[in-house]
Amino acid sequence: MNSVDLEFIRHISVSSPTKIILLVIDGLGGLPNPETGKTELETANTPNLDKLAANGICGLIDPIGPGITPGSGPGHLALFGYNPVRFNIGRGVVEALGIDFDLQPEDVAARGNFCTVDKAGLVTDRRAGRIPTDECTRLCQLLNGLVIDKVRPLLSPVREHRFVVVFRGEGLVPAVSDSDPQQIGVAPKPITALIPEAGRMASIANQLINKAKTILAEHHPANMLLLRGFSQRPQLPTMNEVYKLKPAVIASYPMYRGLAKLVGMEVLETGTSIEDELATLKQNYANYDFFFLHIKGTDSAGEDGDFKRKVSIIEQVDSALSSLTSLEPDVIVVTGDHSTPALLKSHSWHPVPILLHSKWCRPDRVKEFSESACVSGGLGRFHATQIMPLAMANALKLTKFGA
Amino acid sequence: MNSVDLEFIRHISVSSPTKIILLVIDGLGGLPNPETGKTELETANTPNLDKLAANGICGLIDPIGPGITPGSGPGHLALFGYNPVRFNIGRGVVEALGIDFDLQPEDVAARGNFCTVDKAGLVTDRRAGRIPTDECTRLCQLLNGLVIDKVRPLLSPVREHRFVVVFRGEGLVPAVSDSDPQQIGVAPKPITALIPEAGRMASIANQLINKAKTILAEHHPANMLLLRGFSQRPQLPTMNEVYKLKPAVIASYPMYRGLAKLVGMEVLETGTSIEDELATLKQNYANYDFFFLHIKGTDSAGEDGDFKRKVSIIEQVDSALSSLTSLEPDVIVVTGDHSTPALLKSHSWHPVPILLHSKWCRPDRVKEFSESACVSGGLGRFHATQIMPLAMANALKLTKFGA
Repeated sequence: MNSVDLEFIRHISVSSPTKIILLVIDGLGGLPNPETGKTELETANTPNLDKLAANGICGLIDPIGPGITPGSGPGHLALFGYNPVRFNIGRGVVEALGIDFDLQPEDVAARGNFCTVDKAGLVTDRRAGRIPTDECTRLCQLLNGLVIDKVRPLLSPVREHRFVVVFRGEGLVPAVSDSDPQQIGVAPKPITALIPEAGRMASIANQLINKAKTILAEHHPANMLLLRGFSQRPQLPTMNEVYKLKPAVIASYPMYRGLAKLVGMEVLETGTSIEDELATLKQNYANYDFFFLHIKGTDSAGEDGDFKRKVSIIEQVDSALSSLTSLEPDVIVVTGDHSTPALLKSHSWHPVPILLHSKWCRPDRVKEFSESACVSGGLGRFHATQIMPLAMANALKLTKFGA
Repeated sequence: MNSVDLEFIRHISVSSPTKIILLVIDGLGGLPNPETGKTELETANTPNLDKLAANGICGLIDPIGPGITPGSGPGHLALFGYNPVRFNIGRGVVEALGIDFDLQPEDVAARGNFCTVDKAGLVTDRRAGRIPTDECTRLCQLLNGLVIDKVRPLLSPVREHRFVVVFRGEGLVPAVSDSDPQQIGVAPKPITALIPEAGRMASIANQLINKAKTILAEHHPANMLLLRGFSQRPQLPTMNEVYKLKPAVIASYPMYRGLAKLVGMEVLETGTSIEDELATLKQNYANYDFFFLHIKGTDSAGEDGDFKRKVSIIEQVDSALSSLTSLEPDVIVVTGDHSTPALLKSHSWHPVPILLHSKWCRPDRVKEFSESACVSGGLGRFHATQIMPLAMANALKLTKFGA
């Protein structure tokens, strides 16, 4: 399947009253349990998803390409129709989005670790013994308030030893190297400019690190810090510009709200459960024509290697589904941003099952929503960036190309 | 299915102890025998390949694109993950690799034919009556030793009327036209520079042709020569650079060893039979983490239109397979570089069946290795350049892309 790009879609998309719901079950795809030969999705009892699949059209998506394991950022950008190789989101930005930090366009964000160094300055523990989050918060406060060459480094705790530093000031260029050596027994690396324009950024980051070394000296095991993934918020065309949609995100985890904000989605406040998210959908249904609903638990269970819990969360989603289908949206898409097989305990490269349900979808012969069944689906195996054009078409929001 | 490029893979590939075996059964794909409705692969009794397919995941590859028939060079480059349209290998270079000629980076190689011309200088037989190889060898020796404008043309016999000429000297640019008119009743064409920088190359080639015409005058039917496909060895990133692999080739035919050398594989000496190649694999198994095994007989049988012999060679491969599987490599890929249906007596554009076997491959419902069954495989139909990313992922040699 060849693909078309955002600029192409922008020229043929039209606004209309029809509504699209994109339900993302994070890390949906799995691998078969060796005892049963069935994946998490195939093990789960999912009468409602199966019904949608039977009346809809199914397939398998590659978020980036065959063999490539996506992070959450690239996985979601692809679902929103943005080429994740072209629009790369840096580590620092992803971390800032993950704590709901309100990144400004000129801010440069970096991922930070508090770490332990010995008397010779060599790293002995890249995670400072995973200090408690409270301690991380206290150390961030200790380091905040500095101004270096008119730039303010703003440190915010994430969890345990992890934090984000956002450099706020004018004219910063994020093309600098990491200080994190990614190994122990060596000194943190000086940060260097990867292009001449980034010299000031490198200098400011190195000054911060030197000051931090002094301030943290008495706070063993967190007596030093490591920075990596310097990056700025990417400039993405909004979903309104590209698709003429009025889009909203319903997600209980900050990172996914942050990713959605990058493409111009409005954030709807919601609770932590699947039912909370569906209640939010119902309350706001009249006000938007595109909803991105994000379910986190499946990915977390997969990462924990908890096959049973992943099955159970898929079943919870299935049970709650009627409050979504009863709204009778014109297009429902159910898929994941990548696979997270419990057997691998991590994101993986395996293609992700997808179902698309609409009045105009030309149903195939797939009768259940599963990895195996989706292999024979009418959508075939395709690139995730093509989901949005398909959803838009099924919502009759794309005009004819050419005379 | 979208693809990612070598540069992308280079950034996420990591070295690890896992092992990958790529078994290429040359010209594997076929067409159904009109009497039985079964292809060569479907006719062959292949219990071991079928077992690998049943426990693995299958699909169909397009080496270049739908409808495009690949030569051996492009077909193999695609299998190694190199876009064969971007990295084109000239005819002269392929011919030189085919006789194990040790091409240097600055050498320009051309494919040569001894041919017959009449008294008016018009070509009457482009192959000089297919003179015996011995005669070709003698004529090459006759023409060797010339030095033209500080360049030495080195002629080496290939088979019958075919030879290779390698121009060795400094500053040669291969962008010149062919002298071979590809028809009879016309004169050989003067060689012309296609870009200004190639003027010297064209002049030297024309001087060689003029001298050869005099020297060969008394050697009817081989009283003239035709040259085509002037080319230099392409500069390819090595598989070690791209994939961090330590790769080796086991192939009884020189051309395939030559193609593998272009991407940095180490050549392992082997014999002429399938069993020889598998013995070589076993002896060297500990020393490499990627093996390209090449089986030539299927392609030759297909080119000869010998359906039965192609079936028989596939069965020989199947019988010998246990000495490969008993090594328990982490990833086994079995496919071909293109189809060579006995009915067509030539390479063809038909997609080639592929199976991938690994602990992490998410098996599909395909139970036998055949063209028909692979249509429903979980890998779908995809571009051959994506095999390497898939194999690398299944060997857990690719890290996550993006945070």
